[in-house]
Amino acid sequence: MTIKVGIMGYGNIGKFAVEAVQAAPDMELVGVIRRKESISQNQQPTDFRVVASVEELGEVDVVLLCIPTKSVPESAKDLLARGINTIDCFDIHGQKLVDLRAELNEQAKQHNAVAIMAAGWDPGTDSLVRTLLELMAPKGVTYTNFGPGMSMGHSVAVKAMPGVENALSMTIPLGTGLHRRLVYVILEPGAEFAQVEQAIKNDPYFINDETYVYQVLDIESLVDMGHGVTIERKGVAGKTHNQLFNWEMRINNPAVTAQVMVSAARASLKQQPGAYTMLEVPLIDYLSGSREDLIKRLV
Amino acid sequence: MTIKVGIMGYGNIGKFAVEAVQAAPDMELVGVIRRKESISQNQQPTDFRVVASVEELGEVDVVLLCIPTKSVPESAKDLLARGINTIDCFDIHGQKLVDLRAELNEQAKQHNAVAIMAAGWDPGTDSLVRTLLELMAPKGVTYTNFGPGMSMGHSVAVKAMPGVENALSMTIPLGTGLHRRLVYVILEPGAEFAQVEQAIKNDPYFINDETYVYQVLDIESLVDMGHGVTIERKGVAGKTHNQLFNWEMRINNPAVTAQVMVSAARASLKQQPGAYTMLEVPLIDYLSGSREDLIKRLV
Repeated sequence: MTIKVGIMGYGNIGKFAVEAVQAAPDMELVGVIRRKESISQNQQPTDFRVVASVEELGEVDVVLLCIPTKSVPESAKDLLARGINTIDCFDIHGQKLVDLRAELNEQAKQHNAVAIMAAGWDPGTDSLVRTLLELMAPKGVTYTNFGPGMSMGHSVAVKAMPGVENALSMTIPLGTGLHRRLVYVILEPGAEFAQVEQAIKNDPYFINDETYVYQVLDIESLVDMGHGVTIERKGVAGKTHNQLFNWEMRINNPAVTAQVMVSAARASLKQQPGAYTMLEVPLIDYLSGSREDLIKRLV
Repeated sequence: MTIKVGIMGYGNIGKFAVEAVQAAPDMELVGVIRRKESISQNQQPTDFRVVASVEELGEVDVVLLCIPTKSVPESAKDLLARGINTIDCFDIHGQKLVDLRAELNEQAKQHNAVAIMAAGWDPGTDSLVRTLLELMAPKGVTYTNFGPGMSMGHSVAVKAMPGVENALSMTIPLGTGLHRRLVYVILEPGAEFAQVEQAIKNDPYFINDETYVYQVLDIESLVDMGHGVTIERKGVAGKTHNQLFNWEMRINNPAVTAQVMVSAARASLKQQPGAYTMLEVPLIDYLSGSREDLIKRLV
């Protein structure tokens, strides 16, 4: 069975999601859903369909929500109500994620669909690593150190603020889970820098970190999609101390986010109706191929 | 509900398994099952029961099979037939594991029990890491580099050979997934070194590696349970190349093996009847605590 995949949104992640679906051996890209304005304004790619609503795509098994986090709840609920699985990369941790999971879980069960949530790299595969570390050494401390790299979530949050024309937020790891945020902004005409700076520093995305805001005239020359993370744990297995673990990756941020979403799309077709974080799905379900072959090759 | 755990075997892993069960907040150690000979020969620990058969333990939810790999099939089938979950650290990869999984799966389903198999660190948590890497970058090569450290599986295999009184096998990483094996043996009286050396080199555990065998008079002074692994992948996410990943750990080998088995014991109570490798169980199920709290803390 070929999995019929739709992609909602054609920004950073959406573009890489198109490639990841095209590269997947078991998937067919049925089309990209964009806002009407974007479709009429831009030159259209020719190797896949671009439509303004999911109905135009015909049969779809799963839609990747490559859209801002704040738009995820509404779009996911709408698609689930149509019996279509959804994959999002909702990037807020904690209670908000738990609450949205409860909402989507109800909607998904009611309409016999599956949502896999927060399927990026953090939240996402980093969450899997943190869980794996506690499975091996339940006592101890885990530090997640991001960067250096551009944070898409943080950049999008700043771009949405009043007075900001364009923005880029860089994450610099300071070790032991602490980070510096360097935010570069182009102001809208008439906007006051001090006001924008304060708004950024008070935003939930930035309030806990050491944050510096710089006014610049050009953002494009600063853009490099490379990113990374180092997750460290020193912990106790049973009663034996000093177990040492280190996970490190250096990646193209939207490319890996999109790939994780595509792997989650595959997994979504193997779950019972409901909403899941990545921790709640067996790892084998994310891969293509027969279960026995995967066990023979990977276990 | 407190999980009632039995431990079968009281060798390297069994001893650490006792500690890991004692340290688990949601478990009770109901006792250790040993062979009759071992019980009468040795001084007994006083803080838990030691018995010769599982019937003597009363109610048991799950038994950790801390026994040699070759004894796993028979013991697992016997326990599953009693409706008791089993956790093993069967350490042979490939077709043999797939075949045993099929056998245990049938037995487990018939008796309404769960087996989680190959629940150590390799196979086990390393298998989870290898799967995670392919989820993020489906194309590319993964190298698993073991050591330096003593291989328990390889040491046990050598100890079982004719003419060998005691043995220790060291694993040295040569990079790109290649290893050197240094095997230290104490011969039984009358055994011929050249014959033992050849038997080791031809054994399936050693035949694919660069293997050196040394005759020694003392093994105890060589024993250090520290071990490690480095798993590397350079791969492609979607159509974007050069995604770099590195997993490294430095651990006490039997302590972490035992901890993984204990975490798997917890997970076994959350699965439908059947036999599973670690890849087939959601990661969240290995941890104690409420699902929502874990999602809030780890995702």
